[in-house]
Amino acid sequence: MIRIGITGYGNLGKGVECAVTAAEDMELVGIFTRRDPASVKPLTNVLVYTMEQAEKMVDQIDVMIICGGSANDLPKQTTALAGLYNVVDSFDTHAKIPEHFANVDAAAKTGGHLALISAGWDPGMFSLNRLYAQAILPNGSDYTFWGKGVSQGHSDAIRRIPGVKDARQYTIPVEEAVERVRRGENPVLTTGEKHTRECFVVAEEGADLQAIETAIKTMPNYFADYDTTVHFISEEDLKRDHSGIPHGGMVIRTGITGLQTEHKHVIEYKLTLESNPEFTSSVLCACARAVYRLAGDGKTGCATLFDVPPAYLHPASADELRKNLL
Amino acid sequence: MIRIGITGYGNLGKGVECAVTAAEDMELVGIFTRRDPASVKPLTNVLVYTMEQAEKMVDQIDVMIICGGSANDLPKQTTALAGLYNVVDSFDTHAKIPEHFANVDAAAKTGGHLALISAGWDPGMFSLNRLYAQAILPNGSDYTFWGKGVSQGHSDAIRRIPGVKDARQYTIPVEEAVERVRRGENPVLTTGEKHTRECFVVAEEGADLQAIETAIKTMPNYFADYDTTVHFISEEDLKRDHSGIPHGGMVIRTGITGLQTEHKHVIEYKLTLESNPEFTSSVLCACARAVYRLAGDGKTGCATLFDVPPAYLHPASADELRKNLL
Repeated sequence: MIRIGITGYGNLGKGVECAVTAAEDMELVGIFTRRDPASVKPLTNVLVYTMEQAEKMVDQIDVMIICGGSANDLPKQTTALAGLYNVVDSFDTHAKIPEHFANVDAAAKTGGHLALISAGWDPGMFSLNRLYAQAILPNGSDYTFWGKGVSQGHSDAIRRIPGVKDARQYTIPVEEAVERVRRGENPVLTTGEKHTRECFVVAEEGADLQAIETAIKTMPNYFADYDTTVHFISEEDLKRDHSGIPHGGMVIRTGITGLQTEHKHVIEYKLTLESNPEFTSSVLCACARAVYRLAGDGKTGCATLFDVPPAYLHPASADELRKNLL
Repeated sequence: MIRIGITGYGNLGKGVECAVTAAEDMELVGIFTRRDPASVKPLTNVLVYTMEQAEKMVDQIDVMIICGGSANDLPKQTTALAGLYNVVDSFDTHAKIPEHFANVDAAAKTGGHLALISAGWDPGMFSLNRLYAQAILPNGSDYTFWGKGVSQGHSDAIRRIPGVKDARQYTIPVEEAVERVRRGENPVLTTGEKHTRECFVVAEEGADLQAIETAIKTMPNYFADYDTTVHFISEEDLKRDHSGIPHGGMVIRTGITGLQTEHKHVIEYKLTLESNPEFTSSVLCACARAVYRLAGDGKTGCATLFDVPPAYLHPASADELRKNLL
């Protein structure tokens, strides 16, 4: 059994708790939190510890899955914990991945451990599919569409507008743009031409709805460049119809082959997820298995899914995989 | 530059010739054939050699891509050449992969070389996607749909019927079955319930069309279990409208997560290929790059795409991949 620890217990940590519980070859040793452990109520009967206790349990845990946020938690936590444990994180600030990789690599090598960063679906499975498709079709174009799904960052941006009590924002791919890509037209598309944004807003009593709508639609970076729709709804309706955290999207590469580049091909990878954090957690859990095995091979430092032989992610033996899946 | 040899020069060999020519980090050293080399006319100005000459050129080629057929050529050729070279093949008789793997593994280890077998899209990219999706969603169901595309085996079977001059058979996924899978209904479907078969037949003059149609529709294994449509057309129409070799298909896994398995997810990988052999060749070419690099790491014996760190397939450096694709 691979012994797993979880650091951080929000939606992602809960998802890892479920995924580890469902894995036949893993056991969950403990949850580590910055909060008072007594205040944390896990979904299962796993024990909860303080972050300080993590330093004393290095012999009890094979892989620590770090479930903090990318903005403030992971740059510190993954670097610190990689000195003590083999670790996995879901660092998703794309522009800062090289910097995070370098810091974690140094810490993991010093500690003699293996770290795998930026696991999940984007970065993660979407990245893998971009890589595979480019390797197969060097002459082509890449497209990533996100949604339909809830963007936490955009929902938070709406909540900061005066007069807004609560909000939920969906990112939705423009179907016509998707079809143009699938047809191999190689369109040049901005993010705004690929997606629309739909907002469900609960306004405070007496708030100026027109002012809120204008504030949303003109917000730079977040909404100004998009076709944005705003719906004002009641708090009850928001809770009833918009409490899930669905997401997904598509990675499409179109490319051409043949001596005269006469043949078109389309490679499409599509995710439709009812729970964004639980799917991300499931990827983290599979990556923890791979980290355990790669560390067993003697590998140290920082890695990503790009470095993992796919068989290492799956519980079955290499013989079984070749027989049943190849 | 990675120096590539091609053994066998049919549609697949021609595709590899195109793919290697398009790759910035590869050069094509020669084509090896059982035919009289003077009778082989390559698409490019590459040299053509006899199979016997392959034994004397081991210092000039880094990876040999073997483009023979799975039924008769590859079991002998890959095993023999793996003793001399690092090799890649597209062995696609699913049931015999474990046996082929064992034979090639022994030969490659004896020769101190690395072999990668069963590359392409199924087996190959479809297999990889089955593996990744199962590793992420252990609680779920797998579905593979083939088509719309030309099945060479089924086309050949029709051509063997008396009175048939030429034929082309398309395998087509049943859209309703695909939609049931995408909705997460977990249907139990036979191959016949997932696909229909459409046949375009050129009959010899005076042939009994009704007898041919009956012979097709009642042919065991090939057509009897399918909804099969037969169209009789002229030789000119067959040449004009059905001379391409398109194919493709979908690998879909639906799975559930959450402590009460309350959230559904769908992972879908879809290929739409205008040229089946050229796409397969493009995968073989990327695998040759990975074999070259893995052999450089000292790896010997037999491997499959399941064992290849994805980054090894792509010409860019690990730093560039993390920066641009992660």
